[in-house]
Amino acid sequence: MTYCLGIINRFGIVMASDSRTNAGTDYISAYKKIFDLSLPGERVLVICVSGNLSITQGVMTRLKRDIRDRTEINLHTFSNMFDVAAYTGEKIREVQSKDRDWLEKDNIDYSCSFLLGGQIKGEEPQLYLIYSQGNFIQATMETPFLQLGETKYGKPILDRTVTYETSLSDLAKCALLSIDSTMKSNISVGPPINLILYRNDSLELDHTLQLRLGDPYLAKIRKLWEQSLRQAFEAMPDIEWQAEENGLEDEILID
Amino acid sequence: MTYCLGIINRFGIVMASDSRTNAGTDYISAYKKIFDLSLPGERVLVICVSGNLSITQGVMTRLKRDIRDRTEINLHTFSNMFDVAAYTGEKIREVQSKDRDWLEKDNIDYSCSFLLGGQIKGEEPQLYLIYSQGNFIQATMETPFLQLGETKYGKPILDRTVTYETSLSDLAKCALLSIDSTMKSNISVGPPINLILYRNDSLELDHTLQLRLGDPYLAKIRKLWEQSLRQAFEAMPDIEWQAEENGLEDEILID
Repeated sequence: MTYCLGIINRFGIVMASDSRTNAGTDYISAYKKIFDLSLPGERVLVICVSGNLSITQGVMTRLKRDIRDRTEINLHTFSNMFDVAAYTGEKIREVQSKDRDWLEKDNIDYSCSFLLGGQIKGEEPQLYLIYSQGNFIQATMETPFLQLGETKYGKPILDRTVTYETSLSDLAKCALLSIDSTMKSNISVGPPINLILYRNDSLELDHTLQLRLGDPYLAKIRKLWEQSLRQAFEAMPDIEWQAEENGLEDEILID
Repeated sequence: MTYCLGIINRFGIVMASDSRTNAGTDYISAYKKIFDLSLPGERVLVICVSGNLSITQGVMTRLKRDIRDRTEINLHTFSNMFDVAAYTGEKIREVQSKDRDWLEKDNIDYSCSFLLGGQIKGEEPQLYLIYSQGNFIQATMETPFLQLGETKYGKPILDRTVTYETSLSDLAKCALLSIDSTMKSNISVGPPINLILYRNDSLELDHTLQLRLGDPYLAKIRKLWEQSLRQAFEAMPDIEWQAEENGLEDEILID
């Protein structure tokens, strides 16, 4: 399983991913799932991937090869993020057209999804989620984050802390805690964690970070977060048990 | 969707459930999903249900009717909880045998699952999860909780606060916060919340509670919990961004 997330707000973009890949619980390995395809000073493009590894690698290789070969159309030739998202969707369709039938015959999951975040000079920063079918949606002010993969364990903290006005350093902390919560509840999501931070209009990544298993900062925030949660929990007022008439009613059948 | 959970430890049992039922987002209603089939002083039996409503109602009606009619074998005749779980599984199989083919033909989800918690005089308290197929598992000291339905949003708080030594009043708070987290992230889980608390060897329910939408205690703990989470979050140390060599490596392809 994978967990990737992207958050965009008035200050910039944070994207993060785990690195665990598995083909069943008896074959677990680590692959990077976040890719920087930026042209610093001119455009920032970061992509996170989840799903079938051969499909996502196939798409990423095509996208990178086009840039390297300076083909007439590539991720560095588009003048806006919408077209970058659409082109990424086309590459997904290209790989799916080639491989899907073969995988489907053997009941192998061929789905994949991509997060694309960044900014092109003269344009607003944007964050997209591109589906396995090549169509895509964009993050908005109302819902400033998008997630891929094992999304549920890490969503409560996003719902409660992320807004359009949250500072970038808080967004980064929040992304890390969201991934950490997911790793705690699903062992098929695992380190290293990769994290990028982009400040609007800087047109280059502000920070990139990789936290490996046992990283002291990761251990520290996990411990502190657990302590804080426990303290918060202990500070909750006890339940005010009410009169029995509010209870389960007349369910007791035998007098 | 449904969210039910049961927790058992050295002090007793807490069980809780939401009440929302839906047949698509345009048909939402409330049904109680927790049932008290106890014989106070002699046995405590509480059942939570999730899944296809016609199936779970069919099973509960059969179980209750047998008790009411004092049939030769019913939930009040067994001398241990294991047999109660097995009998509940048999009733599930009985209803599934009758209905499953008809539902399957129209691609209607016929699955269901049940939590069974309680104690029979002279026996240890026990908590079971009974599957759609009629087989079942038991909660243990290592994993003292079992969940049904929309389990993921509410699991992080259980993972971090519930142990075999947690006080009963803390277990009840924790169950409530777990359901509240789930309601916050999935609108198909909703109030009223029903909650029961059983103290070992008392052989009657200590507390039953129903919290309706807008209940002041529910509003208070939700607000306090959000405040505490935000404070805990703000107290987390900022990320220590390291030298760039720990970053995404040489992913920039164009110099």
